[in-house]
Amino acid sequence: MVSNCASETTTSSDAGPLSGYRILELGHYIAAPFASRLLADMGADVIKIESPKGDPVRLWGAQLEGDSIWWSVHGRNKRSITLNLKAPEAKEILSGLLSECDAVIENFRAGQLAGMGYDDAFFKACNPDIVICHISGFGQTGPKAQSACFGVIGEALGGLRYLTNHAKGTTDLPPVRVGVSIGDSVAGLYAALGVVASLASRNPGTSRVVDVALTEAVLSLLEGTVPEYGKIGKVREPSGGRIPTAAPSNAFPTRDGAWVIIAANSDHLFTRLCDLMNKPELASDQRYTDNSERCRNVDSLEEAISAWTRGVDAEALEASLEAADIPTCRVYRAPEIVADEQYRAREMILDVDDPILGSVLHPAPVPCFSGTSRRKQVRWAGPSVGQHNEEIYRDMLNMSSKSLESLQRGGVI
Amino acid sequence: MVSNCASETTTSSDAGPLSGYRILELGHYIAAPFASRLLADMGADVIKIESPKGDPVRLWGAQLEGDSIWWSVHGRNKRSITLNLKAPEAKEILSGLLSECDAVIENFRAGQLAGMGYDDAFFKACNPDIVICHISGFGQTGPKAQSACFGVIGEALGGLRYLTNHAKGTTDLPPVRVGVSIGDSVAGLYAALGVVASLASRNPGTSRVVDVALTEAVLSLLEGTVPEYGKIGKVREPSGGRIPTAAPSNAFPTRDGAWVIIAANSDHLFTRLCDLMNKPELASDQRYTDNSERCRNVDSLEEAISAWTRGVDAEALEASLEAADIPTCRVYRAPEIVADEQYRAREMILDVDDPILGSVLHPAPVPCFSGTSRRKQVRWAGPSVGQHNEEIYRDMLNMSSKSLESLQRGGVI
Repeated sequence: MVSNCASETTTSSDAGPLSGYRILELGHYIAAPFASRLLADMGADVIKIESPKGDPVRLWGAQLEGDSIWWSVHGRNKRSITLNLKAPEAKEILSGLLSECDAVIENFRAGQLAGMGYDDAFFKACNPDIVICHISGFGQTGPKAQSACFGVIGEALGGLRYLTNHAKGTTDLPPVRVGVSIGDSVAGLYAALGVVASLASRNPGTSRVVDVALTEAVLSLLEGTVPEYGKIGKVREPSGGRIPTAAPSNAFPTRDGAWVIIAANSDHLFTRLCDLMNKPELASDQRYTDNSERCRNVDSLEEAISAWTRGVDAEALEASLEAADIPTCRVYRAPEIVADEQYRAREMILDVDDPILGSVLHPAPVPCFSGTSRRKQVRWAGPSVGQHNEEIYRDMLNMSSKSLESLQRGGVI
Repeated sequence: MVSNCASETTTSSDAGPLSGYRILELGHYIAAPFASRLLADMGADVIKIESPKGDPVRLWGAQLEGDSIWWSVHGRNKRSITLNLKAPEAKEILSGLLSECDAVIENFRAGQLAGMGYDDAFFKACNPDIVICHISGFGQTGPKAQSACFGVIGEALGGLRYLTNHAKGTTDLPPVRVGVSIGDSVAGLYAALGVVASLASRNPGTSRVVDVALTEAVLSLLEGTVPEYGKIGKVREPSGGRIPTAAPSNAFPTRDGAWVIIAANSDHLFTRLCDLMNKPELASDQRYTDNSERCRNVDSLEEAISAWTRGVDAEALEASLEAADIPTCRVYRAPEIVADEQYRAREMILDVDDPILGSVLHPAPVPCFSGTSRRKQVRWAGPSVGQHNEEIYRDMLNMSSKSLESLQRGGVI
């Protein structure tokens, strides 16, 4: 066994490799909170500063009696405190917190925090060793730095929206938005990586400011798109559910309205597929003799396969493909994900006790580490707004109950 | 200035925060090579072991006189050595390399390396402090651990394929594959993060084995999909180019065949859009009075907007939307990316001198760090197969020219 995924063996490092680090989050919505949750999942003590009204993301997605279900996951393993950054008292409080932290992650619009008096010089004055991570749409420099940038805009400028579409001439429908906030999540992953790389640095004192642009995070995923255009003028085009250089590989419809992936794009696999379809003659058809012929004639090829799959229910189709050793799977929706044996065996779907919502299914921390179990890595569900005010302001910053009360009355916390 | 993106200021840490670390890559195709390239971009010395035939990914994408253009980026900043892992001599050589490295990253099918004699115990025997990172389709444990898993399968099982589609009833076309190898790249990001977190750990000796599953990396991006299904039975459905809870927000067609994003989903922005369209009456239309009404009547709303955008060329459309301060952008293809001023200002698109291909446009390292410039972070383009055999085998492992020649003749390197 190379990892402890779903194992009960644990050691003193239960919380994960970043145990012993403390991170301050000045984040809201998705990118920065996702980055700091990745660090919290790996054992870091993450303190999330929210305005007294709370992060607006708490109102996103389905609510149960006024409480966000997604928040249980999105906010997990963090401590929440409230602080009105615009209040005059905030500067001293923030300074005290920064001196106790290894890194700070923020995703205000570029320049906005500096406008409130919290620029990099302020952070460094509070803590000369701190790692500062900025996440924004366009990055902290350049002519568009201070422009607003929704996720959909960053994804389009990063080149992903254009490529996520059916092939030209297939449909008039617009290119598809990747079905999740992919730009924010990938920017969050890069931010977490940049912060941890700075913390791991063997040259302390340098590489302490990390600048993540959502647009650039997306652009970094485009494989050969940029160099191939630069070198030979090739403009990469969308190809729908297909892979342009491998056929057949697509999602195919079933009788009961599901989609099943079939990836039979070697000659060997394709012959087996034709036999299974009871159309052995297709394997020797001139149009399909090898992968490049199949790619050229992929329209008629997919029509033939779809005609077959439409007559079979998903479960039977999958079983027959698996029996023939042809790479296949169901296109999973939430019910299939939750029921999947492999995910269950690895504790990828955890039943977490949320004090507000009761039992909630959480996707587990990724990746797995030896020396800890995923179950132990989820220490608590997303906290309520300011749930940790007392333990942090009183115990960490030595503030008196009286001053806490007064700050609360004044709307500072 | 908070970062050195596009600045000339550099210090001794030019290469980035991971300068001084050494990583061994036993990778091929995308996920592991992408992970180790992220580390190389941040300054780590990455040694990539290839079979004497070379990584098959060198044949992917457009070629120029037999050389892969994408490889210039995908292999950059690494040193390439050849080694036939199945040769009896390989074990001692690998052992010598491992003792010089801080981490090893591999993406063979689970169990395959162990089958060749290279299990975790072997890695640890060679170097007790080494961080071991496995990347695979299903992870290293569980009933499906050893199954093959193409990227398209991992993306479908991770739930992303289902959600990346037009809304039900809109089209018979299959759900779209995200236009790049998103599952491999996200798995690579998690692997890089896991490795660096283990290196940064303040409890050395634990958290040294990292287990990344492509399926789980994808699943981790699904926001509220799993908890909302678990708690209230809500099955998240695809919504095409739209955001289900915000309208209008989509890509709209232009007269000259481009797509332009318009995100006018607040009442304020929507009123400005209606004025710009010369249809002020739409802003007070019962069907569009607020965001929830607009979401309910999004079909007719988008029809009205498309009717307008189809009559205007992209450049003029964008200019008029920008003048009206409505969030907008072109859906970028490669030519627009390369010409973009913001990317150029931040040196996100670098002109790199490749000794084989000549000048090649590279997307720069992400993220930016203070103390280095992106231009300096790209130390060299993707090497040829075994380009660094001499300097590594001779200088690092003290092998003689004679034994190198003999290993080469024997097909070992």
